[in-house]
Amino acid sequence: MSIHHEFIQDIQPKLVEWRRQFHRNPELGFMEYETTYAIGKELEALGFTLYIGRDALKSTSRYGVPSSKEIQQHEANISSSMEEEWLNKMKGGHTGLVAVWNTGRTGDHLAFRFDIDALPIKEKADDQHLPYKKGFHSQNQGVMHACGHDGHTAIGLGLAHFIASHSSELNGKFTFLFQPAEEGGRGAKAMTDKGWLYEVDYFYSGHIGIQDLPVGTVAASTKGFLASSKWNVTFKGQSSHAGMKPEDGRNALLAAATAATQLYTIPRHSEGVSRINVGKLSAGNGRNIISDYGYLELETRGETKSINDYMQEQARRMIRSSADMHNVDATIDFVGETEPMICDDEMISIVKETCQSSSNIMHIINIANVSGSEDASFMMNAVQSHGGKATYMLFGTKLSDNHHSPAFDYEEEVLTVALDTYIHIVKGGHLFE
Amino acid sequence: MSIHHEFIQDIQPKLVEWRRQFHRNPELGFMEYETTYAIGKELEALGFTLYIGRDALKSTSRYGVPSSKEIQQHEANISSSMEEEWLNKMKGGHTGLVAVWNTGRTGDHLAFRFDIDALPIKEKADDQHLPYKKGFHSQNQGVMHACGHDGHTAIGLGLAHFIASHSSELNGKFTFLFQPAEEGGRGAKAMTDKGWLYEVDYFYSGHIGIQDLPVGTVAASTKGFLASSKWNVTFKGQSSHAGMKPEDGRNALLAAATAATQLYTIPRHSEGVSRINVGKLSAGNGRNIISDYGYLELETRGETKSINDYMQEQARRMIRSSADMHNVDATIDFVGETEPMICDDEMISIVKETCQSSSNIMHIINIANVSGSEDASFMMNAVQSHGGKATYMLFGTKLSDNHHSPAFDYEEEVLTVALDTYIHIVKGGHLFE
Amino acid sequence: MSIHHEFIQDIQPKLVEWRRQFHRNPELGFMEYETTYAIGKELEALGFTLYIGRDALKSTSRYGVPSSKEIQQHEANISSSMEEEWLNKMKGGHTGLVAVWNTGRTGDHLAFRFDIDALPIKEKADDQHLPYKKGFHSQNQGVMHACGHDGHTAIGLGLAHFIASHSSELNGKFTFLFQPAEEGGRGAKAMTDKGWLYEVDYFYSGHIGIQDLPVGTVAASTKGFLASSKWNVTFKGQSSHAGMKPEDGRNALLAAATAATQLYTIPRHSEGVSRINVGKLSAGNGRNIISDYGYLELETRGETKSINDYMQEQARRMIRSSADMHNVDATIDFVGETEPMICDDEMISIVKETCQSSSNIMHIINIANVSGSEDASFMMNAVQSHGGKATYMLFGTKLSDNHHSPAFDYEEEVLTVALDTYIHIVKGGHLFE
Amino acid sequence: MSIHHEFIQDIQPKLVEWRRQFHRNPELGFMEYETTYAIGKELEALGFTLYIGRDALKSTSRYGVPSSKEIQQHEANISSSMEEEWLNKMKGGHTGLVAVWNTGRTGDHLAFRFDIDALPIKEKADDQHLPYKKGFHSQNQGVMHACGHDGHTAIGLGLAHFIASHSSELNGKFTFLFQPAEEGGRGAKAMTDKGWLYEVDYFYSGHIGIQDLPVGTVAASTKGFLASSKWNVTFKGQSSHAGMKPEDGRNALLAAATAATQLYTIPRHSEGVSRINVGKLSAGNGRNIISDYGYLELETRGETKSINDYMQEQARRMIRSSADMHNVDATIDFVGETEPMICDDEMISIVKETCQSSSNIMHIINIANVSGSEDASFMMNAVQSHGGKATYMLFGTKLSDNHHSPAFDYEEEVLTVALDTYIHIVKGGHLFE
Repeated sequence: MSIHHEFIQDIQPKLVEWRRQFHRNPELGFMEYETTYAIGKELEALGFTLYIGRDALKSTSRYGVPSSKEIQQHEANISSSMEEEWLNKMKGGHTGLVAVWNTGRTGDHLAFRFDIDALPIKEKADDQHLPYKKGFHSQNQGVMHACGHDGHTAIGLGLAHFIASHSSELNGKFTFLFQPAEEGGRGAKAMTDKGWLYEVDYFYSGHIGIQDLPVGTVAASTKGFLASSKWNVTFKGQSSHAGMKPEDGRNALLAAATAATQLYTIPRHSEGVSRINVGKLSAGNGRNIISDYGYLELETRGETKSINDYMQEQARRMIRSSADMHNVDATIDFVGETEPMICDDEMISIVKETCQSSSNIMHIINIANVSGSEDASFMMNAVQSHGGKATYMLFGTKLSDNHHSPAFDYEEEVLTVALDTYIHIVKGGHLFE
Repeated sequence: MSIHHEFIQDIQPKLVEWRRQFHRNPELGFMEYETTYAIGKELEALGFTLYIGRDALKSTSRYGVPSSKEIQQHEANISSSMEEEWLNKMKGGHTGLVAVWNTGRTGDHLAFRFDIDALPIKEKADDQHLPYKKGFHSQNQGVMHACGHDGHTAIGLGLAHFIASHSSELNGKFTFLFQPAEEGGRGAKAMTDKGWLYEVDYFYSGHIGIQDLPVGTVAASTKGFLASSKWNVTFKGQSSHAGMKPEDGRNALLAAATAATQLYTIPRHSEGVSRINVGKLSAGNGRNIISDYGYLELETRGETKSINDYMQEQARRMIRSSADMHNVDATIDFVGETEPMICDDEMISIVKETCQSSSNIMHIINIANVSGSEDASFMMNAVQSHGGKATYMLFGTKLSDNHHSPAFDYEEEVLTVALDTYIHIVKGGHLFE
Repeated sequence: MSIHHEFIQDIQPKLVEWRRQFHRNPELGFMEYETTYAIGKELEALGFTLYIGRDALKSTSRYGVPSSKEIQQHEANISSSMEEEWLNKMKGGHTGLVAVWNTGRTGDHLAFRFDIDALPIKEKADDQHLPYKKGFHSQNQGVMHACGHDGHTAIGLGLAHFIASHSSELNGKFTFLFQPAEEGGRGAKAMTDKGWLYEVDYFYSGHIGIQDLPVGTVAASTKGFLASSKWNVTFKGQSSHAGMKPEDGRNALLAAATAATQLYTIPRHSEGVSRINVGKLSAGNGRNIISDYGYLELETRGETKSINDYMQEQARRMIRSSADMHNVDATIDFVGETEPMICDDEMISIVKETCQSSSNIMHIINIANVSGSEDASFMMNAVQSHGGKATYMLFGTKLSDNHHSPAFDYEEEVLTVALDTYIHIVKGGHLFE
Repeated sequence: MSIHHEFIQDIQPKLVEWRRQFHRNPELGFMEYETTYAIGKELEALGFTLYIGRDALKSTSRYGVPSSKEIQQHEANISSSMEEEWLNKMKGGHTGLVAVWNTGRTGDHLAFRFDIDALPIKEKADDQHLPYKKGFHSQNQGVMHACGHDGHTAIGLGLAHFIASHSSELNGKFTFLFQPAEEGGRGAKAMTDKGWLYEVDYFYSGHIGIQDLPVGTVAASTKGFLASSKWNVTFKGQSSHAGMKPEDGRNALLAAATAATQLYTIPRHSEGVSRINVGKLSAGNGRNIISDYGYLELETRGETKSINDYMQEQARRMIRSSADMHNVDATIDFVGETEPMICDDEMISIVKETCQSSSNIMHIINIANVSGSEDASFMMNAVQSHGGKATYMLFGTKLSDNHHSPAFDYEEEVLTVALDTYIHIVKGGHLFE
């Protein structure tokens, strides 16, 4: 029987409790104040050295920070029980934290990244949806953990408990990156640019769900994560009374609608996967006013940086032309990006060898093929360019609905499997070598 | 010298003061709680018989009532100084009031309609803009009197003062309709359906600005007001992760954008003026989610009911097709309408004859040609179909920018001219005949 | 009984015969070789002085001349019976003729304009359609007299017969302009620029049908003809294999389709009637090739020159933007125009007074309101700017289908009414005064 | 030295001569009368048994046959030197032929497919373009061998010469399919349905160019050919005069343009490659007529049948919606298709082993990845479903421009390499086993 079997059994109820607690209180990217505080207090108690907010990330490398107004509104609603010092470190959208554990013994430096943000989705409210049925659904109207980051955070806490309680059996150094704002590819670069990854030997991250794999299946690595770029576009025209002076308007709503439609006509690329999506459009103020304002949130993706560059070049021209079409101005703001990423073969071996003894892991796949985008790519590329190795794993679970859907949910058993994977890696992969 | 010259001189500062007070505190249609209260308290003091909120309009005939949430938010912010009884009568979006003055002497029954609502426009904040420079700009972020209804309301109060203070010189009965929600053609039908207009002999309403006429010029009647209809359209699709499962989405953002663009392609009509405008579009929740939601606010107009029906028929088909194009569902809500309206020739004579002695009115035009839409049309058509006569006047003023623009403003002298016109009508047109 | 009643009775069968002959052999604008020849030989026999082709119009003022290839193909098919000298004068798309009759006696100079071209429409082939049933339908596949110019030409020949045979009773001078290429506003300017109109005292032209008036009704003048401009637009992109290299294409088909759709979104103009139409679009060569070629034929119209200029300005920007949207080039060729035109009041009196004695004319309307475009406007404006008077009349007839429809047809009795109108004008209006 | 080295050397000039002859006289699919005749007369002289036109293909299985009018025009222009019997067999678009050679000795049955049709592309006319410079450019205006089928045909003739002249050294049976109308996936199914493939043991076909490989490189097999479907779409609306009665039109041009634009917005599919292309759009008759007619030629593709089915389902709905949008009718005609195809591994071995001794072939690639579509798929699937094996090879050559471009050209040395490949296969792969 595995040496840490008991630990897993004991912590299992905590994993579920944490997950549900985070699920109940989801926060959007760069506004994870309470989430960061909850993580931090847990780790502080365990004895980790903490770097919070501005100490954990480079402020100017953040992409797509919410408006001061949104941030201030959110800050105003923060539970009064938060310590002032913590709030001050996070103020202005500097959320997330880095926690370091040094065994004091020579050994590898491992880094783990867990993303902690939620999505602007209104959670489904019916009894088919477990979080609602069990009463741990979102208490923040219009915000939802619909991509499983609540689970990721719980797994990270579980792993931290393991390391703290088994420190005497471990060598080397462990860095935990609880990253804000993964959605939209906005937060990883800011942590990367702070320098946390340059001396890391082995980097691990992963995701629950993604592929249609049963609980108990783990993919030791992934391929196919797409380069991506995220833009906000603002159109400025001229309002006018739509009945009395239609010819005086310069219609920014039509410019935005035209751009949205035309962007989807960018040709497919013969060299690999490409994507375009306009996920948000808002324009206009009143029914009888020709709109002087339009706004888009969009993203491009490509299997390679070059395909994503092609998508961006086409998109830029089309947005400019749509504005010109309706005689309005357009401004493009770059608010996020991810890079393509390649997992190291050596990591597949490590995962396979260390995890084969796990009783929770039924099946290990070498490489899973996906087509999303991940800003963990910045961290992985930083590790690799400094001589380290990196992988991004998947942890199988049945889903009740697609990621980013109002009825998204997963089997909580996946939390145990994922934690067990990390523990086997920590114990087997790096301890005795 | 005119018999009421002194009255006009005395009340002039009040007109400006009222106008600026309403300008400072603009409220959107069916949310004119404080506006109604301010009007009502003034008229109550003068001795008018008041019918407030539910007593003034037919609840079910209101079009485009804001959502309960918006109404409740607004109600929650109402100044605590408002009497509870008033608030109760208005609760749930039942704003506006009808005020009646009966001289007790046989005579004509005259009705005056003043519209009191503001627009969802963010007022310009620079020193070129007089309301900002003088400090009476909107205190309600994103709401603005950008169509002059603040002035209309002030004129109405001025006329009420005149009637109350000169009652002994007057015959007959006077009904004042302070109408909510003119913008969008949403409020007039509800007052009309309550029955106020059926026994009216002469109906007067009007607008400041509209045409490029100097202060001192009055149009005794207008033609060209368009029939119109106002719709809200909701598209429901299916969300999906835009990178991982684009083919599973049913894109409601694209449906809304397609509808918006295509609606403008409805052919012009050879028999007269037509209009289409999508004034608002919002769709989608997040950048990397295929949108399951789209929303439009639009209006059609036509010189005749039949042309407007043509526009509606085309629009309905196009909206349905746009939804089908992207495999989503569309729901159309009818939220407002206006009718075409024809002023009575007899009214032109009355205005011309009674006003020729005014020293404030330099020039009277018989008929001004316009192309907006007015829900006063419901009232006028109700008066006329019961044997009464009706007109809709214009009061000239230079404008600093178009109606419905963030920098809209007018010369406050027009308030005097307009009030003087109403007073001459009241005194000359109906008293001694 | 009218002095020329017998003439009318005698010529009636000829009118129908001519009309059917032209209907059977329709020719497109600037390719009316056989039509011009047929007219010319008839007038030559009557003794008119003829100016054919290059002698009748200014070559460089023609708009929208067909390609050399089309012209050569048509020239190659011309009946071998045409005299070489005639063909030479017309070669290269110089069709139409001017015929002059001088009575030798002092008097007014009257000009009459008859347009002679047909349309690129495939005539309906069923027994409901009279020309088909009676066997005088188009023998030129895809070309059709669907606007009544066959009738106009016949009326012109009838009037020429009258003048030749009644010359001794007439004074002054008569100029007949048998104008090519009215459709598309392409031919009138070329005849105008040749100088025929500068010394004309009275100019008459007209149209059969247009308004829903019964046979026997004549409109002495018209208003509402729109200024217009006609453009051909060519898009040049880059072809590529649509399956193997979609990203290498620059899609001119999409640019053309986008332009076509967007042009209809040009806002209506508050100051008057506007129109836009893309009447032809062709793009692409093969199904699996990304198209490098797109082509549009379009027109803009406006109630005033300034409204038409507005439409042109918007259209130009939108076409340029559509090209830019899909990264292709666009070239705009200006191929035709018409001006607004205003009939002289004096002409209404002339028509009414001279025609009241006609037994064929039941009813005379002063002014008919229309909304098409007419390049007779160039001639009328030239006459008026040199001190002459001008009118454009309508001759009522029931139509079997709209102008420019495959099943268009009219009652042939209208030919008699129209000829009788012209004869009354010639005899009564200018002879004895 | 290879046993047939001399044969290759001797036939090399013939290969070039044939290629240039076919290049000079390109014919579109199902109109390859002269091409078929030229091939047939060559094979007849060699002693092959011929099956021409109706005898070679199943008439009703042809897709996308040109209109009778186009066929008749082409037939009218056929050189008078063609034997009447041949013309009769091909009349009505029954082109292509099957040629059979039986050695009389037991052995494998090999089939070779060569496609013979050209494309509707106007060949580039400048001295940079070799065919033009050397004077063998297309003599058929607007038709061009821009995909190398002229070379394929020449290779086929070369192989036929080899088999005829080396028959005594060979065993088994050889079937040559000179297939019409490969472009658009229109001809292969008709030959397949005639039953030629059911008893074939080994099937070979291939393409010159496609991938950027140097002359001397051969790909023994390919993967990635896409399932595809080809549609023609006709829209029928209602014409009307665009100036006088715009509201009476039902605009088929706008329906076609809307469909063309919207079709490109079909979402990418996460499971593999998809394509959409509208390669041709024509609509409308005249500038000032609202178009009653629109026409599209389009194709969908998918990496799997299921992805192509997804594309078709989306496309069908969008076309229907575009028609409904503008109140017109749409008819979809299915005019071609290809299937995905999988080359047999055994064939790779055969090609590699037999060809390694060739002095013309420098390099053999096992599998080349492509993304076009090929109706040879019907033949391959037919062979494989009856127990045979099949492959589709590529023959490397530098291209002067993309396939389907007006400046497309290849290095003629590829013809030698390809023929040498086929000869090695015939000799080595199947003879002595």
